[in-house]
Amino acid sequence: MVNSIVNTYPLSSYTFGTKEPKMEKDTSVADRLARMKVNYMKEGMRTSVEAILLVQEHNHPHILLLQIGNTFCKLPGGRLKPGENEIEGLKRKLSSKLAANSPALQPDWQIGECVAIWWRPNFETIMYPYCPPHITKPKECKKLFLVHLSEREYFAVPKNLKLLAVPLFELYDNVQRYGPVISTIPQQLSRFQFNMINA
Amino acid sequence: MVNSIVNTYPLSSYTFGTKEPKMEKDTSVADRLARMKVNYMKEGMRTSVEAILLVQEHNHPHILLLQIGNTFCKLPGGRLKPGENEIEGLKRKLSSKLAANSPALQPDWQIGECVAIWWRPNFETIMYPYCPPHITKPKECKKLFLVHLSEREYFAVPKNLKLLAVPLFELYDNVQRYGPVISTIPQQLSRFQFNMINA
Repeated sequence: MVNSIVNTYPLSSYTFGTKEPKMEKDTSVADRLARMKVNYMKEGMRTSVEAILLVQEHNHPHILLLQIGNTFCKLPGGRLKPGENEIEGLKRKLSSKLAANSPALQPDWQIGECVAIWWRPNFETIMYPYCPPHITKPKECKKLFLVHLSEREYFAVPKNLKLLAVPLFELYDNVQRYGPVISTIPQQLSRFQFNMINA
Repeated sequence: MVNSIVNTYPLSSYTFGTKEPKMEKDTSVADRLARMKVNYMKEGMRTSVEAILLVQEHNHPHILLLQIGNTFCKLPGGRLKPGENEIEGLKRKLSSKLAANSPALQPDWQIGECVAIWWRPNFETIMYPYCPPHITKPKECKKLFLVHLSEREYFAVPKNLKLLAVPLFELYDNVQRYGPVISTIPQQLSRFQFNMINA
């Protein structure tokens, strides 16, 4: 039984530029939950998709996170349109968040394994890695996918965001800083064998 | 991209008997770490394999844990012999811990997906879901496998142990009670789709 192998390239093999800001749609958590409720009334359960983009430094895997302001970090991704395919939707979101506007400069987004699924039972911030008992109408389902990067890519980062490469050892057991979803990514990736390429 | 589907049967579809006690080899953590060190000198890195056995109650997944004394819980499994195949070794350990002695009463252990790998860098209790940077000679590698149970099985539980079916919602975020390895199993299983069978 062979583990899945993930090729991981040095951070220095990627090029990073900037592009126009992508502002958050909401200015507060309360706004965000209120908008979620309005959308739920119109469209039913929200499905969101997020990407785990891996690079390596010093032969240790790092994850690319978008930092908003000075503290809040998130995975690149977002909400699917009603009926949208998960893989196509994640590619669309990744291009919107991380690619240059020119179609010629789009990274080759190879969407890989689903590594985790989180459920939001109510219009609240708390999510669980299962649909809790007695919850028949969850409000959101968030899926995390491994995205296999090619050896060289050009990323364009919105000017209001910072792209960070955060090592697994920094994420692990750090729910205070990264929240429950991101801080347990190291456990979800533990089954993969990383092939560190020092090109 | 279809998620892996796991058939999950009610706890009541399984039968539980008892068998002779299986005592722990060590009476203290210090003894355990000392024995680990002796074995490491002889055999090199320890590889251990553990099983996630799933049942369902009220349509929520539960994991079978072995309880020793009043508080300590562990997954069924154990240490591989030097050179032993992981799958065969896990079947051997599961039969030793959970099967009747009669060859005719052996459960059909269908070893499935590897869901997590944990590393022990030193002769200490702490483990990580990655091999930490600068650790070239980890002392133990522990692999967790999903084991797909058939609809009916007979388990024989050693008299000094209790077999518990613990719901995912009890394990989640409960590192105090279950430790870091078992308490993050819900996150590692979140990518699976459970097919709850109420036979």
